Amino acid sequence: MKLVESIKESGGFLNRYTHESASCRCSMTFSVFLPPQATDGRVPALYWLSGLTCTDDNFRVKAGAQRYAAEHGIALIIPDTSPRGANVPDVPERYDLGQGAGFYVNATQEPWSTHYHLYDYVTAELPALVEQHLPLIPGVRSISGHSMGGHGALICALKNPGMYRSVSAFAPICHPTECGWGQGCFSAYLGDDKSLWEAYDATCLIRVGASIPEIFIDQGTADEFLLEGQLLPESLAAACQQAEVPLTLRMQAGYDHSYHFIATFIGEHIAWHAQAMA
Amino acid sequence: MKLVESIKESGGFLNRYTHESASCRCSMTFSVFLPPQATDGRVPALYWLSGLTCTDDNFRVKAGAQRYAAEHGIALIIPDTSPRGANVPDVPERYDLGQGAGFYVNATQEPWSTHYHLYDYVTAELPALVEQHLPLIPGVRSISGHSMGGHGALICALKNPGMYRSVSAFAPICHPTECGWGQGCFSAYLGDDKSLWEAYDATCLIRVGASIPEIFIDQGTADEFLLEGQLLPESLAAACQQAEVPLTLRMQAGYDHSYHFIATFIGEHIAWHAQAMA
Repeated sequence: MKLVESIKESGGFLNRYTHESASCRCSMTFSVFLPPQATDGRVPALYWLSGLTCTDDNFRVKAGAQRYAAEHGIALIIPDTSPRGANVPDVPERYDLGQGAGFYVNATQEPWSTHYHLYDYVTAELPALVEQHLPLIPGVRSISGHSMGGHGALICALKNPGMYRSVSAFAPICHPTECGWGQGCFSAYLGDDKSLWEAYDATCLIRVGASIPEIFIDQGTADEFLLEGQLLPESLAAACQQAEVPLTLRMQAGYDHSYHFIATFIGEHIAWHAQAMA
Repeated sequence: MKLVESIKESGGFLNRYTHESASCRCSMTFSVFLPPQATDGRVPALYWLSGLTCTDDNFRVKAGAQRYAAEHGIALIIPDTSPRGANVPDVPERYDLGQGAGFYVNATQEPWSTHYHLYDYVTAELPALVEQHLPLIPGVRSISGHSMGGHGALICALKNPGMYRSVSAFAPICHPTECGWGQGCFSAYLGDDKSLWEAYDATCLIRVGASIPEIFIDQGTADEFLLEGQLLPESLAAACQQAEVPLTLRMQAGYDHSYHFIATFIGEHIAWHAQAMA
């Protein structure tokens, strides 16, 4: 992996790397915030998965997370949301399919199946890479994300018991097989057999017995995508209740889907993950 | 003034307004963060002046200031950096002249003199407008800014003793009459008589006796524009020492000119301004 940018922030360093990804068969870019504590020791890592249209840039610029990561001594690992490049399939006129919309699955359908393997990338290739090259405590990881990335955080944790010490999400797509965004991407990436979609749907995974010690979600009540039925936290809540999976779902009055919502609560999420990784 | 957007953040509201500006003779846009304390009372106001290429958007998205403003119960008033619009003169191929580069002066030269009156706008029209329409304590104001906006904050305070309770800056252009950015804009907006430029130069103002109780500046040592001589804090420091104007100039090791630098120290600046306005 190649360091392409390094900016001092909150006493640590906000770095950007590129590398040739075996999972995605293209060059991938990701950002890492290394807190001051990483200068003379290894630190735990919080993975952040971003939402539709995002790159690794949005979270590092807009969420104000670095100061909390510095305070708690944890690294932030911030991957891109899809493979990129001129050779990577895309639908430029759509923000919710193709580049910027990897949906954290391993695509099986042409033309997506060559590059769109974000699930393998996020859960296997990237952790192995950063734990080899950066001052991280091997295996001490947590995961969070926003919207499509909240969905990604939930399924990564549910499908890999023990891999993450904790999982949280901001306004996650909780039940992608039943919302327009999820159906659009899953049908393209995974094909028409809806039973195969369920392996990447947090609500479905919990219904069939996937379990983790706790799920922590913040959701704004004025979120435009909640109101149009893209997020469906009520489906996840029902599944968790049925399966007795502990869920803390905070409905935050008046907050929308933007990074201003994330910025408001990211400090509490980072403190919670830091405690889980302590 | 017309409310065009309102987003809940940190328990308060991040609003955007448009209005017809008498100073700039065009429609102007500005943002205001109203902390939760403004719901049932009047609050002090910190004015933030942004740098070259910015609009009212950069600071509100990238600095992470709102959480501190909410904590201390102060409003943030965030004007644009220039007049805008199809009828407003511009040099589209230059980022450092015209729209996005108002430099907080009242232009006297054609074609700029019709609209480029940011000095009057920031020090008179905007405070009168927001103190009339928003829950602000009249007259209780502080001011800060970044780069070109740091220059703006310094000259607004130096030219209006008593108008602001406190002034701070991040990587300000301290001596615009002696740097490329300042000379480019001042010659265009103010003409060839350099003696007229000195009325908008913090270092020159202090040399001729302008005084304020204290100036607080953070400057990164790895700031690319410091290294190329655009900022000249050493000139301001020398003038302050000569004139016995108290200056706290913190050279922050390794920090650059970006919002990641601002995000690192904005909490300390807001706490300092809040104390001055208490």
